[in-house]
Amino acid sequence: MKNYKMTVLYDGTHYKGWQIQKSTSDTIQGKLSDILLKLTSKPVEVIGSGRTDAGVHSIGQTANFHADIPEGMSVSDLQKYINAYLPEDIAVTSLEEADDRFHARFDAASKTYRYRIYVGDTKNVFERKYVYSYKEAVLDAEAMRRASQYLLGKHDFKAFCGNKHMKNSTVRTVTDIRIEETSDEIAIYFEGDGFLQNMVRIMTGTLIEAGTGIRTPESVEEALKSLDRTRAGFKVPPQGLCLMEVRY
Amino acid sequence: MKNYKMTVLYDGTHYKGWQIQKSTSDTIQGKLSDILLKLTSKPVEVIGSGRTDAGVHSIGQTANFHADIPEGMSVSDLQKYINAYLPEDIAVTSLEEADDRFHARFDAASKTYRYRIYVGDTKNVFERKYVYSYKEAVLDAEAMRRASQYLLGKHDFKAFCGNKHMKNSTVRTVTDIRIEETSDEIAIYFEGDGFLQNMVRIMTGTLIEAGTGIRTPESVEEALKSLDRTRAGFKVPPQGLCLMEVRY
Repeated sequence: MKNYKMTVLYDGTHYKGWQIQKSTSDTIQGKLSDILLKLTSKPVEVIGSGRTDAGVHSIGQTANFHADIPEGMSVSDLQKYINAYLPEDIAVTSLEEADDRFHARFDAASKTYRYRIYVGDTKNVFERKYVYSYKEAVLDAEAMRRASQYLLGKHDFKAFCGNKHMKNSTVRTVTDIRIEETSDEIAIYFEGDGFLQNMVRIMTGTLIEAGTGIRTPESVEEALKSLDRTRAGFKVPPQGLCLMEVRY
Repeated sequence: MKNYKMTVLYDGTHYKGWQIQKSTSDTIQGKLSDILLKLTSKPVEVIGSGRTDAGVHSIGQTANFHADIPEGMSVSDLQKYINAYLPEDIAVTSLEEADDRFHARFDAASKTYRYRIYVGDTKNVFERKYVYSYKEAVLDAEAMRRASQYLLGKHDFKAFCGNKHMKNSTVRTVTDIRIEETSDEIAIYFEGDGFLQNMVRIMTGTLIEAGTGIRTPESVEEALKSLDRTRAGFKVPPQGLCLMEVRY
């Protein structure tokens, strides 16, 4: 049995997220598993680098799976086969044979997410499924940058975790937060060793609050230290979020 | 009663085109009419510069309507009101008072359409509703440019008309065809005094055939002169098409 590593790009709009739930047809992992089951006639576990929530997109989700593919089928053929059976909103953009011990989740060294906030005057019709349109107030990107500095480093991010019943460690290391501003968009890139459930969306909401001035940049440090979810900001909606890259 | 001129942007994916059919809820014209009826308590005819087919998009569709809007409502308020009631895939991007005699269809001097052909190797997941993904053959943009020259000028475009029962004149003037090429896309801009039903999509299919080499650039002239629909190329799908601008 060989181990394969792949990059999976998807428009998460119509899915309940990456991870298989009751039905396989409404998750990305489920769609991939179904195709590999059909090809190999055996259940294949597709291991993602991590979950993405319902409505969240990916350019760089990475996954691996062990399978015996039919004799004579090259890795390139395998990629074509999977893509041919995937729906139009999911694509395998790279596929290669990996070391037998490679594990997409355990071996992930860092992940980069992007959150797009649209701040233009006119309705963003064509990208509405890929941005969060924010009109409530003007955002000061410089204040957001100052606030973001408090999130850098190794911290207990319990206050930024969407799962109240999280039993495992909520300590994570955020290595970089980059805020890119154009005339009608603010995009925030978060890089870290891993992120808790909803953590990127809660960090983004908190930075937005700093950007509007309803909270000070310093209050982000207080929220972090409090370990109290109610002290951090609101959770932005999923459609602005995209998993950009997983490094190993 | 005042006359208003507006620019309407839309993602045509979920509509049966611009023009009202049996139900008002599945066309762009219908959505606008319903909102203006609600505002003024009178039926309001929204006159577009022309129809767009089901699935075709717009950045520059222009329309006018005569209405008595409530006292104290400014033109800017009116635009905000309409946008507030429009669904997320339609936007009025400009609205102004026009001369009483202004007519969006009769006064249109020229229209510009863009057709986007995606020719990249990977599946275009995020723009799939806005491009035609063409993988059948490699396209030679230079051959397409040569072929496009035969379509310029004033001609009887009967061979490029999708309506077999067209009773009115099929003579139109195409003033410009511009083909822009990037590494993974060929975009064709068509400008003319007006276009017959499906004409832009049939011209595009014909240029694609010239681009693959299955027809010569010169055969486009023969097709045009034949006045025979079967001599022109195939009709490309709607989602690559966008009405960019209407000039008056």
